Amino acid sequence: MRLFGLGLFVSASVFAAAPAIAQTPASGPIDVPAKTIQVPTTVSPQLQKIIAMPLRSNWNLLPKTGEEWKPVADAGAAALVKNVPGMLERLKVKVEKTTIDGVRAYIVTPETVAPENRNRQLIHMHGGCYVLNPGEAGLPEAIFMAGFGHIKVISVDYRMPPEASFPAALDDGITVWKAALKTTNPKNMAIFGTSAGGALTLEMVLKAKELGLPLPGAIAPGTPMSDVTKVGDTFYTNAMLDNVLVSPDGFCDAGAKVYANGRDLKDPMLSPVYGDMTGFPPTILTSGTRDLLLSNTVRVHRKLRQAGVEAQLQVYEGMSHAHYIRDDTAPESKEVFEEIQGFFDKHLGK
Amino acid sequence: MRLFGLGLFVSASVFAAAPAIAQTPASGPIDVPAKTIQVPTTVSPQLQKIIAMPLRSNWNLLPKTGEEWKPVADAGAAALVKNVPGMLERLKVKVEKTTIDGVRAYIVTPETVAPENRNRQLIHMHGGCYVLNPGEAGLPEAIFMAGFGHIKVISVDYRMPPEASFPAALDDGITVWKAALKTTNPKNMAIFGTSAGGALTLEMVLKAKELGLPLPGAIAPGTPMSDVTKVGDTFYTNAMLDNVLVSPDGFCDAGAKVYANGRDLKDPMLSPVYGDMTGFPPTILTSGTRDLLLSNTVRVHRKLRQAGVEAQLQVYEGMSHAHYIRDDTAPESKEVFEEIQGFFDKHLGK
Repeated sequence: MRLFGLGLFVSASVFAAAPAIAQTPASGPIDVPAKTIQVPTTVSPQLQKIIAMPLRSNWNLLPKTGEEWKPVADAGAAALVKNVPGMLERLKVKVEKTTIDGVRAYIVTPETVAPENRNRQLIHMHGGCYVLNPGEAGLPEAIFMAGFGHIKVISVDYRMPPEASFPAALDDGITVWKAALKTTNPKNMAIFGTSAGGALTLEMVLKAKELGLPLPGAIAPGTPMSDVTKVGDTFYTNAMLDNVLVSPDGFCDAGAKVYANGRDLKDPMLSPVYGDMTGFPPTILTSGTRDLLLSNTVRVHRKLRQAGVEAQLQVYEGMSHAHYIRDDTAPESKEVFEEIQGFFDKHLGK
Repeated sequence: MRLFGLGLFVSASVFAAAPAIAQTPASGPIDVPAKTIQVPTTVSPQLQKIIAMPLRSNWNLLPKTGEEWKPVADAGAAALVKNVPGMLERLKVKVEKTTIDGVRAYIVTPETVAPENRNRQLIHMHGGCYVLNPGEAGLPEAIFMAGFGHIKVISVDYRMPPEASFPAALDDGITVWKAALKTTNPKNMAIFGTSAGGALTLEMVLKAKELGLPLPGAIAPGTPMSDVTKVGDTFYTNAMLDNVLVSPDGFCDAGAKVYANGRDLKDPMLSPVYGDMTGFPPTILTSGTRDLLLSNTVRVHRKLRQAGVEAQLQVYEGMSHAHYIRDDTAPESKEVFEEIQGFFDKHLGK
């Protein structure tokens, strides 16, 4: 045995003639050439079909007011709701429209509630850049969760522009949370949602902390819009590759701006990655390798871990933004929601 | 309240005039235009410096024999070992060279072993595409782990081409594992490593299962070369962006092929993602958003979870392949190894 010392290392000059594979210091941007990216063979045929779709048409449509967004949102919703009846049938879930203290919502119930979930319920905040997926169009994720998780879900059909802007969506979520607290132990409840719904999930916990309300037993923000200031590496590295959001300069950014209505976009109630996550409940995060918001997701994960919060990260091969709420027959969708339900089961009271 | 039925959904034709943001079916590859990617502002100054480095020089150097690799490996090692004394000093770690049942190894010991780690030790398999980082050049990760984790590490200086090829590296790892079993409870030990070392970590567990040897209490494969058949989405999506591995057609692939020495690259002892992970110990995986092997990492994570294994995924903002073992003064490096040590502490016996 010998102890290391500075003098024991061989000088580099001995090897000067050999070609080193090494990096020399520099600073600055990197020029990535154009690439043709194939559909991966490492995912299910259903997910391959979703990944093979072209970039979202009109991804660079940038409506500037709630009034301009309305017809866009309605057209998108009309296309989406056509899928809902099939989902309900396949996943054996029923949906009832309701109003909770003045807030529009849907009660989403599986045919069979698992015994361990009898005294539990989940609050769902849908996605859509704060301007899309009104009404039934916001339901697919809630239906997936109820169906794969065998658990009751309240899906909040929160106000969006032009009906109302910031902080209307958050306020509606908090109203429903307060109402839920009257009937159910907070430790038996979780909040979840994807994209803007993932951000709203985080914002609701920040707001509940601020208001001194009890926190849920767990949360599941999926690929959250945790930073709407265009900061985050994958906004750029995955641009023109993520076929859903496509670019940080696309429709989603435009939607968030309309909702913000002049509010500083760095406000933690719009960009929750800047909030104080101390004391957050156990959190499971979901994203994909092609997701424009992969950075927004992993930054929240790191921030939670740095605050000592139990936080699980799930990143799925090949998925762009929120691909996991497209097709309930894709095994990856089932896997995402069963992972979330497993996490909830571990952390929620009964 | 009303119950949903098929007839309740509004026909899409009503909205035909509005511009929908929607995707139309198609199939096939996606053409991603050339991009200039800035260094992210969301990481530490130290990590920014690492990310700002240009693509590794000679990344497309493709030696075809062990003899051709030797001078390349020696030149790289000479450059790397110059950093070791500083790391040892800053992290208060000492290194002793030894031989364990004929296998070269280093005993890496922190000045202060944490009380909970007194009866624990870790086995380290270094990275380098099975051909690089001989001798002291393989030590940085072991030093980081010992220093940040306050725990004893045995780093295996396994045989590589031209000295020996497949399965020499794995055999040397197993020899050290068997020797360690004579002195230490397997549940008090973990195996870890990055890149080829991450693959070897997984291969050692597969091999231990095959041989009926006791398994470690936990493992930490970092950005493992879990698939050397060039399958995995980020091989392509992160090509020419990851400044370390650069391309699936680069030096690392060439190195793995030389080590494989004609063996089928899909053999789980070379591409462990194809192995049976049932019964694996708790596993913590580490990668980065720019990592060429992000897919190789998340695919292992999913496979472990599908096998019911407790598995944690850590993905760090902006990191290319193995960026976390470059600079011990980067807060992200400390974070990576403290997370791993926290995971080990949770799962190892005392």
